Amino acid sequence: MKRIGIGLLGLGNIGSGTYRVLELNRSHIEATTGLDLRITRILEIDTERDRGFTVDPGVFTQDIDDIISDPEIDIVIELLGGVEPATSYMVSALKAGKNVVTANKAALAENYELLTEIAARSGTELRFEASVGGGIPLIGAITGSLCANEFTEILGILNGTTNYILTKMDENGREYSDALEEAQRLGFAEADPTDDVEGYDVANKLSILISLVFGKRVRPGEIPTTGITKITKEDIGEAESQGCVIKLIASAFLAGEDFECSVQPTWINKEHPLAGVKNEFNALFIKGNAVDDLMFYGKGAGPLPTASAVLGDVIAIAK
Amino acid sequence: MKRIGIGLLGLGNIGSGTYRVLELNRSHIEATTGLDLRITRILEIDTERDRGFTVDPGVFTQDIDDIISDPEIDIVIELLGGVEPATSYMVSALKAGKNVVTANKAALAENYELLTEIAARSGTELRFEASVGGGIPLIGAITGSLCANEFTEILGILNGTTNYILTKMDENGREYSDALEEAQRLGFAEADPTDDVEGYDVANKLSILISLVFGKRVRPGEIPTTGITKITKEDIGEAESQGCVIKLIASAFLAGEDFECSVQPTWINKEHPLAGVKNEFNALFIKGNAVDDLMFYGKGAGPLPTASAVLGDVIAIAK
Repeated sequence: MKRIGIGLLGLGNIGSGTYRVLELNRSHIEATTGLDLRITRILEIDTERDRGFTVDPGVFTQDIDDIISDPEIDIVIELLGGVEPATSYMVSALKAGKNVVTANKAALAENYELLTEIAARSGTELRFEASVGGGIPLIGAITGSLCANEFTEILGILNGTTNYILTKMDENGREYSDALEEAQRLGFAEADPTDDVEGYDVANKLSILISLVFGKRVRPGEIPTTGITKITKEDIGEAESQGCVIKLIASAFLAGEDFECSVQPTWINKEHPLAGVKNEFNALFIKGNAVDDLMFYGKGAGPLPTASAVLGDVIAIAK
Repeated sequence: MKRIGIGLLGLGNIGSGTYRVLELNRSHIEATTGLDLRITRILEIDTERDRGFTVDPGVFTQDIDDIISDPEIDIVIELLGGVEPATSYMVSALKAGKNVVTANKAALAENYELLTEIAARSGTELRFEASVGGGIPLIGAITGSLCANEFTEILGILNGTTNYILTKMDENGREYSDALEEAQRLGFAEADPTDDVEGYDVANKLSILISLVFGKRVRPGEIPTTGITKITKEDIGEAESQGCVIKLIASAFLAGEDFECSVQPTWINKEHPLAGVKNEFNALFIKGNAVDDLMFYGKGAGPLPTASAVLGDVIAIAK
């Protein structure tokens, strides 16, 4: 059994999910990989909250240096969210020779070159499967099994909140504001839903995908982005009458030197595989010059699906 | 640039597709991976056929030992199909220290333990992404990004021929025999369609998936298997009246000690993501205890999609 020391930054929803999945599937992971994954330090201010499991108080710290300078820690999992201090902490960890796993789309989309270049220079690994599509294994597939392809097109439903709202508007004939309220009540939308409904969250994810799929760098702020707040019941009905549904689509196309990308509400023909992606589900449709049309579908958020992706990255590094 | 010598067994449809995709995307692969992949020997009797590209005649051989004993060959790609001589050739290659990539579901399903054990003992890699779901990156995802999950359920549409026939019966009200004839005319079914329409091809693929997903060994002949030859227009209509479509489904479920698997025509509710998988497309629906519901969708056969998976495996080994 190979012991891998892990420092966890943040024990909020996603951090707690990661902790729980690791404990739940510990014997499975040990049996199939031979790895003994140990979260030995956790950077977290809130040490008292009831998370449904017990953490030895000595594991908590409020000083990032306790993790960066700990020679027993091989991998740092960053689940703080937001651009800072997450980016600085990741930079410090990579420079100190730690491998880093993150779910942080905002930090990655903003500082993609910085982080990937520092990882390359430090000879460490930076992995971020969870940053786009939650548990859906998009990034591993694009950089792994599909790497012999040149890609020409991606079309994604990459935000569960907006897809839930649009689904309820479509299926129940609701207005936007009613559907948003329901989504908030059920926990599919935050109290301040701006990041989701204005498309900013999707623009972050599309920026990361464009880097991976097309090798191009487009900052989130450079992506033409329109959210769903102006969509009406009438818009949905008009699309319906033409055999279409409205989805918030992140798209990017490459044809020779021509490259286009956007995040916007888009009519999708009901025959297209993306049309059937409902409620909080996410999907990515991608076209390669060998593999042709592919689609990945699953839960794009939530503590357990995100933990699946985070731990997949941890195991890939540890192997 | 790191040069990788490749021996190719078989230059039929899939072999030719692999050769073509490697040439088509050579500069992309070199730029993104730093690998110079060279097919230096090809085992093939038919050296004269017009394949739309030219192979130096000196590359062809009809003696497997020319490949097994060639110290310049690092990876053997086996695309002969059928259990023998493919299995014996793979065993020889692995024992000689060559890594092996194969698309051969029949040989793998029949000799899974033999091949994986010899690879493990020889310290070589055996990869087979193309054997299930063609270009869809299932196996890489299950063994990679998703490996922290325990899986409880798989449901697959894993044969394009039967899915094409069932789609035409459903959409055009055709009888089985008419739809089969159309599929044969369009190249979606072979002259002797037995392997596909009786479900044997799917049973091979399900056997491989069960090994990977559940760590259990069930031979294809042990999987209860029913094909689609008895499905009538009336059966399709009856399913339709209940809001369902009929699909040839490969399934496996694990609950505690209870394990069940089968290949059979199955009613799928039109709300289920698998219901929208039409024509020659394949899909795998899988449930993990962290990631929850996932679906992968794409082209499950054909020279170029299969080549995508084969070359993905080659690059993974070469890296």
